Amino acid sequence: MMNAPIRILGLDPGLRRTGWGVVSIEGSRLAWIAHGVITPPESAPLSERLLHLFHGVQAVIEAHAPQEAAVEETFVNNNGQSTLKLGQARAASMIAPAQAGLLVAEYSAPVVKKAVVGTGWADKKQVAFMIARLLPAAGGPTQDAADALAVAIAHAHARRARPAGVAA
Amino acid sequence: MMNAPIRILGLDPGLRRTGWGVVSIEGSRLAWIAHGVITPPESAPLSERLLHLFHGVQAVIEAHAPQEAAVEETFVNNNGQSTLKLGQARAASMIAPAQAGLLVAEYSAPVVKKAVVGTGWADKKQVAFMIARLLPAAGGPTQDAADALAVAIAHAHARRARPAGVAA
Repeated sequence: MMNAPIRILGLDPGLRRTGWGVVSIEGSRLAWIAHGVITPPESAPLSERLLHLFHGVQAVIEAHAPQEAAVEETFVNNNGQSTLKLGQARAASMIAPAQAGLLVAEYSAPVVKKAVVGTGWADKKQVAFMIARLLPAAGGPTQDAADALAVAIAHAHARRARPAGVAA
Repeated sequence: MMNAPIRILGLDPGLRRTGWGVVSIEGSRLAWIAHGVITPPESAPLSERLLHLFHGVQAVIEAHAPQEAAVEETFVNNNGQSTLKLGQARAASMIAPAQAGLLVAEYSAPVVKKAVVGTGWADKKQVAFMIARLLPAAGGPTQDAADALAVAIAHAHARRARPAGVAA
């Protein structure tokens, strides 16, 4: 059976910077398509910053036509204000793929790290190093984009591990 | 100088239930227009629940054509998971008015209570009681819708307190 290439959008949401990355997977072959960072204007009202994020992810989807999307599960810490901001940014970036008809899979940070580095306890530098190895065409993306590409790769691994035709 | 009536959308976001209320203000005269609750399907994936919220608020805006919007500032507590959910719901409900060109004002819970009950330390029952008094046509809305109408009233008060033509 042939496996047509699938494009996956990975998202690393943040209210100041939302990283995104698109990879293509064909069987076990992974290829880089594009990546970038969306930076809402910091001085704008919250509703406009969220709209900027939403439109930014919409534009990425229009430009690169991913068929599936993935986002990292948010790390909830003791700082309520930062959790709130992260939640808001996360929703803004998840609504765009949902509106485009894409399911948005969620993966915990250890699962993402295991998929990219081989262990759930890798640090951010190791993730960036492995992204540069796995996707040399990406040319060493910044941290936010590297994290987004890592989530996309985690999704590529997870969907390969499922029997064909079975949804997450 | 004439003051044309202004329609205000108030929002009380929640991932399980998002209350909304639309009031009209003309000078100091307040009138009820509509209210309701948006309830995303609980068993759906998070991205679809957020999309449901977003579409729900979009539909309210199309049906009732508010010119301004307001939302309560989120109470950040020690429960990171609930703060995260609230943040996500909040963003989903704020992006729709932002996309429609409405600024979304934010008010703290004490400011909302003071506008409706006269004191910042009122409980929810007092808020519901005063909403029924101030907006008899609303017919005693449920808690979520009453809270949303209260935010809309707080915005009506705040904008009257500003000189004409001065934005928040």
